[in-house]
Amino acid sequence: MAQDFEFERIAQDGRARLGVLRTPRGEIQTPAFMPVGTAATVKAMLPGSVRETGADILLGNTYHLMLRPGAERIERLGGLHGFMNWDRPILTDSGGFQVMSLAQLRKLDEQGVRFKSHIDGSDWLLTPESSMEIQRQLGSDIVMAFDECTPHPADETTAEESMRLSMRWAQRSRDAFGDRPGYALFGIQQGSLYQDLRGESAAELRKIGFDGYAIGGLAVGEGQEAMFDVLDYAPDMLPEDKPRYLMGVGKPDDLVGAVQRGVDMFDCVLPTRSGRTGQAFTRRGVVNLKNARHANDPRPLDPDCACPACQGYSRAYLHHVFKSQEIISAMLLTWHNLHYYQELMAGMRAAIASGTLDEFVAAFHAQRAEGDLEPV
Amino acid sequence: MAQDFEFERIAQDGRARLGVLRTPRGEIQTPAFMPVGTAATVKAMLPGSVRETGADILLGNTYHLMLRPGAERIERLGGLHGFMNWDRPILTDSGGFQVMSLAQLRKLDEQGVRFKSHIDGSDWLLTPESSMEIQRQLGSDIVMAFDECTPHPADETTAEESMRLSMRWAQRSRDAFGDRPGYALFGIQQGSLYQDLRGESAAELRKIGFDGYAIGGLAVGEGQEAMFDVLDYAPDMLPEDKPRYLMGVGKPDDLVGAVQRGVDMFDCVLPTRSGRTGQAFTRRGVVNLKNARHANDPRPLDPDCACPACQGYSRAYLHHVFKSQEIISAMLLTWHNLHYYQELMAGMRAAIASGTLDEFVAAFHAQRAEGDLEPV
Repeated sequence: MAQDFEFERIAQDGRARLGVLRTPRGEIQTPAFMPVGTAATVKAMLPGSVRETGADILLGNTYHLMLRPGAERIERLGGLHGFMNWDRPILTDSGGFQVMSLAQLRKLDEQGVRFKSHIDGSDWLLTPESSMEIQRQLGSDIVMAFDECTPHPADETTAEESMRLSMRWAQRSRDAFGDRPGYALFGIQQGSLYQDLRGESAAELRKIGFDGYAIGGLAVGEGQEAMFDVLDYAPDMLPEDKPRYLMGVGKPDDLVGAVQRGVDMFDCVLPTRSGRTGQAFTRRGVVNLKNARHANDPRPLDPDCACPACQGYSRAYLHHVFKSQEIISAMLLTWHNLHYYQELMAGMRAAIASGTLDEFVAAFHAQRAEGDLEPV
Repeated sequence: MAQDFEFERIAQDGRARLGVLRTPRGEIQTPAFMPVGTAATVKAMLPGSVRETGADILLGNTYHLMLRPGAERIERLGGLHGFMNWDRPILTDSGGFQVMSLAQLRKLDEQGVRFKSHIDGSDWLLTPESSMEIQRQLGSDIVMAFDECTPHPADETTAEESMRLSMRWAQRSRDAFGDRPGYALFGIQQGSLYQDLRGESAAELRKIGFDGYAIGGLAVGEGQEAMFDVLDYAPDMLPEDKPRYLMGVGKPDDLVGAVQRGVDMFDCVLPTRSGRTGQAFTRRGVVNLKNARHANDPRPLDPDCACPACQGYSRAYLHHVFKSQEIISAMLLTWHNLHYYQELMAGMRAAIASGTLDEFVAAFHAQRAEGDLEPV
């Protein structure tokens, strides 16, 4: 573990783990959900509000930030924390995944990925070494190794070649990261849906040695069942005493199933993106505020929720401001969704602490099965 | 004055008045600036934040609300205050001005204005009587009489005919409003730039009797000098013991000049609209955050401002999020602009109280003349 970083496992319930990741910028209670602050902002939220929902850590996207406003600029301005007014931990991805999904004319070889910016068409090269340097410039607390997120579906030969490239890049990331007290480096397991490849990848990463381990290459279209199949074995291949981070996941029931399978950290754009498209996550399932059935409904989105959207407004209002394309719609629904996600994580942490996660999960599914509120 | 409404004049400095308008929903310190909450939201702000900037009262737009979500719906849901989560006073305009500037195929005659909705093309008729009814359904605390905002420029005959129509509509508004304890009705002076017409209009309104008096038909393209020429005489034509409201004004120096001329209330979309287009109002003048000169500037927008945008962020950040079209840009700049406007009003109120408005105004202009911050 990097100096000043400590992962304490407090309790275990089945394979689920309760822990705390101590960092120089504050503690992260795990299992943890990290809201995504792509371009130095969690969209439609002020940082103080994000913290109020219970978030201990944010995720920043290296790809977006390197292109705009630029990592050197952020470094000159004192780093990402001060720039975006968030003084708690930040994890940055390596840029690899975003390059492959967003950049133009990308070309991957042993060295790294060449691409053109989707913003202005400028030429860039991202390598394990430059990714480490950019994440250092940003001031990221938890740096992710540079990898290739193996596309889905992939036959075993393709998955193997891709995973082995990522492992060579993992070693180069480790070498380039060097010794940075106060900062942590996480490796990323690949191997697609193949158990033997996941095992080989985990062994390689353990050999190199990281401060935490991510499970990559999931939530890329394989579906929940296939993802859970991998999670039935993949987390346990990773060191027990280090945090395990499932990248890009997910829907509420994905989080619940993954926590049951031993995952400690998550990130996903779903609660924030859905907040901008009129979708609310509640304990009774997803509510689409754009639906006309809400137009005259005086009831709150969720009568049991303590967030500002549920405490101050009716479904009728949330429907109205969504239809009118008012910014407050994104503000309120994003706040609600992040509040719900953090409450779900806090609920799972409390259940693990008391050894009642199975009951918690049963109640979680039962309440969703009841469906949304009865008609007025 | 309507029962439960009381306007107390506390101090006078030259023609400027310090007062308090007491309403069943709370006090309004005057001179007051009312943020505009067109469609049941002050765009990009939560109501609690609007209140934090110092706003005592909001303005709602009858035209927008009648079309969407509909005044009957808002009434069924318990009124505009609960709907938009603002429990302090709300003033609504009559819809007349917005119909003439936004609606399609509008046709004005003695009865009122026929038009098609700009949202769905549906047919509507707005009259003094229906405007009073819609504003009642909304639950507005301060109802505006239905008038025609005389277009600019207007020759004297046109201005006279338009003003006299508005005065007949003012009487019909008064009759239709009836006796509503706890709610106030304001009349609106017209007469374009013609002093004799302004005088005739004021006399008509005084004869009818209102709880407050607005100065209408200004800020429609005549320029500040012509507006101030009218304000040199128009406010004093209105009853001394009632609040005077200058509709749709204005820029910071408009507010200052109008307060000096005896105006008590203002509304304008400028601080909120500008907040969405990267324009910030500061004591040193307007700052355009889209300007590339801010890209590397670590300094706050205004080092002496206590708003969240100035306390938490650099100009470089505000430039970045504006360029990246992030919602937080509108959130922060709107908050800043409303904070600045309310601080300006509070400064003028304190200066009137201490009899130092001339000094305050001199300092206001001197600081603006210094211009924006020196280059880094």
